[in-house]
Formats: sequence, structure tokens, C-alpha cells
Amino acid sequence: MRRDDKVLVPEANALVDRLRKLPILHDEMYAQQTGLYDYYGMSTLVLPSIPGYKRIIYTILEYNPLLDSSNMTPEDWIRIGKDIEKNYQSYDGFVILHGTDTMSYTASALSYMCENLGKPVVVTGSQVPIYEVRNDGRNNLLGALMIAGQFVIPEVSLYFYNSLYRGNRTTKVDTGSFNAFASPNLAPLATAEVDIKINWDTVWRANTTAKFHVSTELNSNVGLLRLFPGITAATVRAFLQPPMQGVVLETFGSGNAPDNRPDLLAELKKATDAGVIIVNCTQCLRGTVSLSYATGKVLLDAGLIAGGDMTPEAALTKLSYVLALKGLDLDAKKKMMGTNLRGEMAVDLAGSKLSLSDS
Amino acid sequence: MRRDDKVLVPEANALVDRLRKLPILHDEMYAQQTGLYDYYGMSTLVLPSIPGYKRIIYTILEYNPLLDSSNMTPEDWIRIGKDIEKNYQSYDGFVILHGTDTMSYTASALSYMCENLGKPVVVTGSQVPIYEVRNDGRNNLLGALMIAGQFVIPEVSLYFYNSLYRGNRTTKVDTGSFNAFASPNLAPLATAEVDIKINWDTVWRANTTAKFHVSTELNSNVGLLRLFPGITAATVRAFLQPPMQGVVLETFGSGNAPDNRPDLLAELKKATDAGVIIVNCTQCLRGTVSLSYATGKVLLDAGLIAGGDMTPEAALTKLSYVLALKGLDLDAKKKMMGTNLRGEMAVDLAGSKLSLSDS
Amino acid sequence: MRRDDKVLVPEANALVDRLRKLPILHDEMYAQQTGLYDYYGMSTLVLPSIPGYKRIIYTILEYNPLLDSSNMTPEDWIRIGKDIEKNYQSYDGFVILHGTDTMSYTASALSYMCENLGKPVVVTGSQVPIYEVRNDGRNNLLGALMIAGQFVIPEVSLYFYNSLYRGNRTTKVDTGSFNAFASPNLAPLATAEVDIKINWDTVWRANTTAKFHVSTELNSNVGLLRLFPGITAATVRAFLQPPMQGVVLETFGSGNAPDNRPDLLAELKKATDAGVIIVNCTQCLRGTVSLSYATGKVLLDAGLIAGGDMTPEAALTKLSYVLALKGLDLDAKKKMMGTNLRGEMAVDLAGSKLSLSDS
Amino acid sequence: MRRDDKVLVPEANALVDRLRKLPILHDEMYAQQTGLYDYYGMSTLVLPSIPGYKRIIYTILEYNPLLDSSNMTPEDWIRIGKDIEKNYQSYDGFVILHGTDTMSYTASALSYMCENLGKPVVVTGSQVPIYEVRNDGRNNLLGALMIAGQFVIPEVSLYFYNSLYRGNRTTKVDTGSFNAFASPNLAPLATAEVDIKINWDTVWRANTTAKFHVSTELNSNVGLLRLFPGITAATVRAFLQPPMQGVVLETFGSGNAPDNRPDLLAELKKATDAGVIIVNCTQCLRGTVSLSYATGKVLLDAGLIAGGDMTPEAALTKLSYVLALKGLDLDAKKKMMGTNLRGEMAVDLAGSKLSLSDS
Repeated sequence: MRRDDKVLVPEANALVDRLRKLPILHDEMYAQQTGLYDYYGMSTLVLPSIPGYKRIIYTILEYNPLLDSSNMTPEDWIRIGKDIEKNYQSYDGFVILHGTDTMSYTASALSYMCENLGKPVVVTGSQVPIYEVRNDGRNNLLGALMIAGQFVIPEVSLYFYNSLYRGNRTTKVDTGSFNAFASPNLAPLATAEVDIKINWDTVWRANTTAKFHVSTELNSNVGLLRLFPGITAATVRAFLQPPMQGVVLETFGSGNAPDNRPDLLAELKKATDAGVIIVNCTQCLRGTVSLSYATGKVLLDAGLIAGGDMTPEAALTKLSYVLALKGLDLDAKKKMMGTNLRGEMAVDLAGSKLSLSDS
Repeated sequence: MRRDDKVLVPEANALVDRLRKLPILHDEMYAQQTGLYDYYGMSTLVLPSIPGYKRIIYTILEYNPLLDSSNMTPEDWIRIGKDIEKNYQSYDGFVILHGTDTMSYTASALSYMCENLGKPVVVTGSQVPIYEVRNDGRNNLLGALMIAGQFVIPEVSLYFYNSLYRGNRTTKVDTGSFNAFASPNLAPLATAEVDIKINWDTVWRANTTAKFHVSTELNSNVGLLRLFPGITAATVRAFLQPPMQGVVLETFGSGNAPDNRPDLLAELKKATDAGVIIVNCTQCLRGTVSLSYATGKVLLDAGLIAGGDMTPEAALTKLSYVLALKGLDLDAKKKMMGTNLRGEMAVDLAGSKLSLSDS
Repeated sequence: MRRDDKVLVPEANALVDRLRKLPILHDEMYAQQTGLYDYYGMSTLVLPSIPGYKRIIYTILEYNPLLDSSNMTPEDWIRIGKDIEKNYQSYDGFVILHGTDTMSYTASALSYMCENLGKPVVVTGSQVPIYEVRNDGRNNLLGALMIAGQFVIPEVSLYFYNSLYRGNRTTKVDTGSFNAFASPNLAPLATAEVDIKINWDTVWRANTTAKFHVSTELNSNVGLLRLFPGITAATVRAFLQPPMQGVVLETFGSGNAPDNRPDLLAELKKATDAGVIIVNCTQCLRGTVSLSYATGKVLLDAGLIAGGDMTPEAALTKLSYVLALKGLDLDAKKKMMGTNLRGEMAVDLAGSKLSLSDS
Repeated sequence: MRRDDKVLVPEANALVDRLRKLPILHDEMYAQQTGLYDYYGMSTLVLPSIPGYKRIIYTILEYNPLLDSSNMTPEDWIRIGKDIEKNYQSYDGFVILHGTDTMSYTASALSYMCENLGKPVVVTGSQVPIYEVRNDGRNNLLGALMIAGQFVIPEVSLYFYNSLYRGNRTTKVDTGSFNAFASPNLAPLATAEVDIKINWDTVWRANTTAKFHVSTELNSNVGLLRLFPGITAATVRAFLQPPMQGVVLETFGSGNAPDNRPDLLAELKKATDAGVIIVNCTQCLRGTVSLSYATGKVLLDAGLIAGGDMTPEAALTKLSYVLALKGLDLDAKKKMMGTNLRGEMAVDLAGSKLSLSDS
């Protein structure tokens, strides 16, 4: 994630300098002829002319110090959210350059924080840095800018390797491929190959005319716990102990856990009784939590919320957002966790009528 | 997982009865004509004649009570291991029918427990029970039997949807598809479509003439901990507290963790100093942990072992196996965790020379 | 393709006999208890009870002699069409068992012949014969029967390897895999894995209340000609000579042909001037013919019709159908070739505005 | 395809000018400092420094006029071949920029023409022209140059969308995706994502120390004929008439044709008796021609050669090459068509023992 806080720190300005030398991402002649820098400042760049597109002018805001993706925290998400809010009226769209490692967490968090979003916020980055000769950063940035600058896709999305995904549906699936992200339970919002094709049926639109607002409260007492055979009650108890307030339990298959382990289930029940919200998500890459198994129903009885087809990233950041909401009691928050807020889960969880699944 | 302990429990014998009525999986006429039941007992079945194959005769051993996949524990793995050992000389191969939810954990655990394995052990199952009309169980069982009965693939493998995988390379990736398993970092050992094709170059063979033996000691003080942005030191401390002895840390991307979080790193260091073995595996589906990042190197400094391209399932069960080995000190066990034992990790972790990865 | 013309020929009745012995595909006890054979005759079978489904009863009509898929001709398509028409009122749906080699041609042809279709016609088959122990025929037939018997998908579809495709969108892409068919330019109509999921948005419905009718006139003077570098004018002339009346030209990329070959173009023009309808389809598996290239425009000038994203199979059989229609002049037929009749081509061929393709 | 014949034609030199302005593909500062132009001339460029790589200097040879891919002919292949031969000693490798439409034909033809090749010849291009802002040409050219300049892969290969394929194994499969090519029957020779990984086991090496030579004789009397249901004997006869000397027959499935069509088979037999070589290839994208069917055997009887798993492109250009070879009689040429020359077909066509295919 690289943005500019307007303090002149030479190293940190490396990105603007680099981009200015890439004719794909900046048209210096146009900038000179139109007095772009006088008007918008030295951190502003302009894409070359693209037939069928309006000129896309963009300003780089670079954070200082730059953050490694692995070091991102909820505080950094809030900082980004505030910057979007501050600049919301002045721009048609926003592109966030981010390291790939925690990109899906950031995109998920921002999707909840950005309430009543009416403009595109596109998170992108690269597997190989844009400073290398052979890299995927140029194309990812170019595509993200073209989409953010041209189409009204009012979502927090993630653009990578020629696909635009809903951000809170993504997960990083590959450490070594340019095709690093997947959206296992939702088709891409758009693909950008020879043509840019938008799947308008899939694009999410808030059913509201309410004003855009960034919620900057996030609860940090949340966690991800993955089930495994033989997990001890002690481990579960330790993980769920105060101040923990919200946990995503990564269960087996379609939302299953041992149903012959009263010790384990008692720990979960004790926690939910004490007000911890526990959301049941599958540890499988693809698919949804269903409620038709004995082994899944014991978790309902223990007070867990069914997380449907949410990714762990989407569920964790949703917990962080929902727990911090003001003026809602615990039941309202629990209900919210099982409700679709930003397209992060399928609305219709039925359809199980014809299901014949074995666990 | 369904096996028969020879006690006559009507419900539990449902599988043999069901299979006996499926002409695909049993040739009753052959059984009658050859006096099969007199010779092998009533739990024995025989596949129909298949051109190019010898007749495959198989006996069902069914556990009582049957276990739901979600309820499997290391004790159950030991029970299966002992049964393989007990029957090792009498059979050419072994097929284990198992629920899909924890199948990869079981296959991984058995791969370590089965030392100097010289015969095929194929784990299989189905997404839809074999008792349903439309199911994937018939084909999975038939394929597993044909492979176990005909080819010398002396591994603990997993057969699903026409592919044979090395068991400790698999993970369940889909709750709703028949193609439920992936082996993200290793090509299949075999595919069974119009032809059965074995990739003999990939099949693992122990470099030993030592006698087959099943190690039935497993350490249960192990766990899986997935990193996420904002994870607190308290959570990590709670998870690592005694009696925990081995932990798989699911890190970001190529093995990264925050390097600006001295509190977090101190907890990890404190644990490794106290003798906990922590293995660094990626939370990405595909790829390997590399050591070329600042954010990855801090984990080395904190005493973690690089887990290469092991799946979390393979790493967790390997910890359980290695920690229980007798006559090895902690350093030897740590070294073992970073060494390939059963084909569970790529031997060559170099090749990073030309890597240009960004995290 | 196996159907029964009611003549008692023992060998030909092998299929009914085989199916009757497969408990997956026939419930003999139910048949006996309900007097099924008395009522419907000895060629009738009944699927086992499936929760959530009504009982599916089906009658086998087997042709004699059986036809190898490679030997199918338009006359055989007509014969099938007539049998559908004859039995249309008596059944809720139709399943056609067909060899895989020419299955896409047959499904395409039937899609045009079946005018105002209001019931499912599902073509299926197998890569490995249902008489083999390990085969894909059982599951393909079972799935086809369940879909034809339960859902109102009033199309000529093709069911294979757990997917239901629009028949005229398919092509056989693999000689050795169970996953033998692809529908490169249209998503499946349905998938049948743990759940059966119908993509109702994709299912085609005729905008008509006209009566079902099978058109049994097909013109045989049609052909497929694939361009290749260096193709001679003599070859093209020979191929286009009378009595040829309709040709699918498999062109390069997005519908391109040499534009520096006046000899070649003259042959094409001469043919279209003489009344031959030539349809421009791409020889690429996936994609569409576009009209934005110089090399494509010369074909328009030569009188060719743009075939959009039709497969060669769909275009060839459409020619055969359209050329045989009564009461239409050549221009009307040409226009029809470029118009969507049964969902065989994308209605909207525009969207090329943002296209940047290089040939 | 763009190459430079050293005549100063402003438009034609557009490529060098364009590349010189792309810092990814040319390091002007290095060129100036090292006097590159003085030494190598103005058509020479140099890649930026890449850690782990030697500097890659490359000279553009541009043809005038530029050729559209659709207009390529065997004469153009010969011209390219001659230029490779002329410059063979002066360069470590060759990159050929080519339109995508006939790229697989060209790569296939060159693979035969380049006898005893000891250096990489990489064909590449783009779906979107390098002159567009968003294009795949920059990355394709960069990757091709890095591979041709750094690795000894002595094949005619095709580089596209981060994969290096054996050229004569490829076919264009998509008109609208950047991932336009497939190598359906052979895994890629290399992939270039975060790391460049060469599959050295797959790389073909001539078993010879004979001198490199380009065969520049190609027979143009060859053609591609695709079977379809109802094809008339007249069509086949017309296509096979003199001067046709070699034909690739694109058959159904695993190499099948109607066996109940004596008229058709007689035409084929008449042609092979008259000395036409007819090669049997499947019209399926993936798979191989097998000889185990009645419907396939009739083609053997008619004198056809089994083409194994060759693509139609590979088989057609092989015919063109083999027919032009001097000093071989017809039988020797026929035998050559069924023999692997440049890795274009699997050596081992057996393995059908366990095959259960249905057509």
C-alpha cells in the first residue's frame, strides 16, 4: 500500500517518479500541454489517450512510511477509509495500491466501512513489484485505473490479472502465480481482456439514497480459529477467553464440528452465552455452510451463527465492523452477522431441498 | 469411514448388504460359483470381471459404531493404522472409506504412521452417500478398488472424482462439488477416465528395504493458528500456552508475518525458546513459504521452521507424528519437520534465484 | 444411439436387459408391485425413489440396427425427430442415448428441427460403454433422466459429466476424458453435483404459444470448409461447386481470411453470387466472429454471413435446416442464418466498442 | 509479423520507434553509454538490467510490407526460415513477432523446417496490438526475449500469456482472451509468473550433432478436410482431386469415420491408391487417434495414416514439409508422417490396453 501524505520524503515519492517514466501509465506530453501540474499538483498523472475512454487523470497519495502488506492493521484500514471520505467529492473513483498478502482482508474491511458507497473503490497490487522489469503491477494498475475512471461500479472491488472481483469475496490462493486471487463463490464483476466486459447483473448496488459515510470504528477483539481433528477443549477455551468478542470458526465441510465432544461444545456454548459472537464458516475454499447435518446442528445449538458462503476474511472483518456499531444490542448484531450487508454472502441460503451431501 | 469389527450389528452391516446388491461392485454369480463366502467369509465381495485386470476380491471391515468424519480423532487414525498393520500380509492393498470432511487430515496422518509402506493404501469416500440414487460413492469406491488391487503404488493416496492424489498433498476445497479435493502443489499420481494413466515419475518410493511398521504414537498437543491483520499478542500467547508442543502457523503469502510487531514476535520466540515447534505454512491454497522477505525472516529469527509447500493438514499431522517419535531430541525433531519424509513437501526449495515476488 | 422400433431382435434389446439389472436405474420391486409392465409394456423401467423427486418412469425405444455415432446422417436425425413428435403428448420429456462422436451435431440439428418445443429433450451418452464395469454411462443416463423427468427446460440439451448444456452450443473437445464436451461460449444450463442447480436465467424459452412441430426437411448439400495458410483457389472452387448450397467457412481468429488473395475471394464471391450461403465461423474453440478487421471485411464483401459465436456444428446444421425451409427466398434465408433462432448464438453481437483486438 | 528488411520505410519502422520509447523493453541510457548503436546499428535495442540475467541485446528485422497474420503463406514461412539460417551464427536466439491468427501454423511449419536446431526460436505476438495502451504485447515480447536470451531451449516454441509451449503442439483457442493459445496434448515447456520455471524433462533435444539447416522446400498441394455427418462422396472427391497430394482428415472422436459409407471410403481409397497421403487426426481439441474401433479401422484399410495426437496445424505443415523432401519414396514419406519428428506427437501410442472408450 503506497500513498502520499504530501510530506516530501524522497524515497517515498519513488512511485510517482517511477510512474511518470512509464508511457503506459503517464502521458507527459499531454500533462505539459494542458498545464496539468499547475492545476492538480506534481503528484498528478494522466493516462495516455484510449479510444472510447475519457482521459483518466489521477493523483497519487502516498503514505509515509510505506507499509508492508503483512504489517497492515485495522488502524491502517481506518486511515485509508478516512482518506477516501476526505477526498470522496473530488474524485470519480479510488484505486488503492496494496501488497497482495493481506489485500483481501483490507478489501473486505473497506467494503463494510464504506457505507452507501456510490463510486468505485478498486484495490489492486502486484505479485512482482512494479520496479522490476517483468512485473504484473503495470497491467494491474492500468486496468484498475481504467475501470475506476470509466465505469460506475460502486463497490469495493479487487482487480487482479485482468479480472475485477467483489473485494469481500476474494482470497489470495497462490503465492507464485500472477493469477493470485480467487473469488470462489461469486463470478467476477468484470473481465478485461481483448474487451472489457462488465457483468452488470452481478454488480452490487445499495438500495438507498443515503449519504456516503465511512465508519471508522472497528473492534479489534476478533479472531479466526480453524478446527482440526483432535483440537483440545483447552485450546478452544484459551482462544475464546476475554477480551475476545467475535470469532470466525473455520469448520469442516458444510459447517461441521464434532458432535461427540461435549467438552468442546461446552466451551463454545460458554463463550456465546457470555456474549461472544461466533460465526461458522467453512475451511474449504469453495462452498457454503449448511444446516442440514447433525454435526452442523450442534453448533447452532451452541449459539453459533451460520456464515453461509462468506470467506473467513469477509466474516472476520464483518465481525470487526458489526461489533463496533453503536446503538445495537447483541441480538441485533448477531442477526446482522447472518445477513447480507455488502454482497459478501449469498442472499438465498435455501435451495438445499435437493441436496444429497455426505460429510 | 466404515469398517466392520466382526460384531453382528445389523445397522452397521448396511454397507456390505448395500454393496452386495450393486452389480458394479459385486459379482454374486462369481461368488457363488467359486465358493467365495466359504473361503473368505460373508464380508467378502468380488468386483465383476474387467478385461485386462485380475479379479479383485475385497473384504469389508466395518467399525462399530460408525464414525462421522467430523468426529475423527488421532485415536481413530491409530486404530486404522493398527488394522492395516494387522492385515498387511494378507492383502495386496487397502481402501479406507472415509467421510470427506477430515479425509485429508486422515490421509496425511496415515502417510507418516505407515513407515516403509510397500502396498497401496487408498483413502476415498463420497460427497453424496452411496445409499442415495445419484451419488459419487460407487465410482469412487470402484476406482479406488481397481487401483489398490492392480497397481503397486506404495503410498497413502486419496482417490476422488477420477484422480488419485498423494494423500498428504490434498485438501478439501469444495463443499458442493464432486470434485471436492485438490492437490495444489503436486500433480495427481494417476487419472482414471477412459484410460487409467499412472504418472509413475511422481509415485513416491521409500529408499529402503526396511520392514513395514505402523507408528501408533501421536502427540495431541498440536494446533493450527492462522494469522490475520490485527491479531493480538494475547491471542497468540493464549494459543501457545502449555501443554501446546507443536503449532502450524498459517502465515500470509510466502510465509510472512508482521515485522513491526515486537509483542507478537516476542510471544512466538518465547514459545520456541520453551521448546514449542512452530512450523511456518502459507494460508494460501497454492505455493510455498520462501525465506527472501524481511517479513518472513523475522519468523526465522523467532525460531520458526519453514514448512515449504506443505499443506496445513500435512504439517499438523507431521508435527503430531514427529513429536511422538522416541529417541530424538528437540533439534532432531525440528530438523525433521523441515525435511521431506513421505513426499509431503518439495525436496528442492531453492529455485528462488529468479524470483521477483512482491508480498 | 439406441432406440427400439418394436421389432423383437434379441441383441438389440440388450440395453433394456442391462438397465433392468442396475438398481441405480431401475427399481424392479416397484415395477412388480405397481404392475408397471402390464400398464406400460416390457420396455418400461422406473428409477428408484429419490427424495424430493416424483417417480420417474421411462420407456426405452431402441433402433434396430443400432447405429454407430460415426454413421449418423441427417436421415437419422429426421427419424429421431419424427419419433419425438409421435410420442410428444405421451411423455414429459425425452432422453436420447447417443454416441459421443457426433452427439453435438445431432443435438444442434434437433434444436432447429424441434419448433416451439415445450418439453425437455436431453441428449446424452458415455465415453465408456454402460456395459463396462467402470463407465460414465450410468451417471450420465441417470442425470439426464432426472433432469428430463423433473424440470421444465424446454430445450434440446446435452447432459454430460454432471453438466447440462444447450445442445447447439456444445462441441466434443476430448477423446479420452469423461469431461468430453464443452460449451465454449455459453455457461451450462445446469450442474448436478451435490445439488442440482438450474441456471434459470440462461434457459431458453420460445416466445410463442405455437404448437410443437418437428421440421423433417433437411438440405444435405452443405459442408464445412476450414481455412489454412496457403489454401488454393482450386481447393475452394472444388469444395464450393454444385450441388453445394451452404457452407460454413471456418476462418482465422475473429472471422478473418486473406485479404490479399483476389483469386480466393473471387471464388467465394462467385459462389455467393450463385446463391450459395456461406457462413463465417471461427476455427477457434472460443469466441466470436467480429467485423472490425480489414481481413474480415473482405469476407462480408464476398457475400458471407457473419456467424457470430456459433459453433461449426451449430452453423452447419442450421444451414441444413434453413435451406430446407419452404416459402422463403434466398435473402430471407441469409438473414435467418445471421439471426438467433434457438439460442445458438449471442443475440447481442455489439459490445465491440471497447475491443482492441489484434489478429 | 513484423520484420525489417533494412529499407527505410517510415511506417514500417514504427515498431523500433515504439519499442525504443518503452522503458520496459529498452534501456536508452545503457545504449548511449555503451555505444550500442555504433556497434550494432539503429535497429538494435537492449532490455533493462534484470538481476540474475545477462543483458539481452536484440536487433529488429522488420519485413516490408508488414504481413497480416491471415495473409501468411508457406512462402512467408520460407522467408522467415531463410532469415533464421542467415543470422543463425550471429545470435543466441530468435524471436518472431507474429499475428495470432495463424501463429500456430507458422510455429508448426518452422519446427519441421529448422533441422537440427540448437538455439531457441520463440514465436510470439499479442491479442491487442502493442500500440494500444492496454495490451498483452509488451509482456509477451519481454517474456519471449528473456527466454530466448537466457535459456537453451532449442525448439521452435510459442510464448503467450506467461507460458512457453512447443510450437507444433499449439492451437489458437480463443478470439477474445489474452490466454489465446492452448497446447492440449502437452504440458507447457515453461511458465513465467513470479518465477520462470522450465520443465526441462519436456524440452525436446535432437539426438544429433548434425549441422543446423533450414529446409526451404514446402509442398503447397495439401489441405485440411473436416468430416461431418452427411458429408457427400462428391465433396470428398472434389477435395481430393489433383493436384492435391496430402490431406489431413479431421475425423470424429478417436479417429472415426462412417464405416457404412462405401462411397465415401472408396473415394478415400482411390486417393491413397493414387498416391495422396491422408493423415487421420481428430477434430476434438484434445486426445489422440486410436485404432481400436471398427469405424477407425476402415480408415486404415482405406490407406490413411494414423496421426496420433497431432494437431491439425502440426499435421498439415508436416505434410507440406515431408512431401517436399527429396530422395524419399512415397512409402518412406508415409512412414515419416506417422513418426515423431520434432516432438509434434507422442512417441508412445500404445497404452490403449486399459482403454474402454465408447465412440
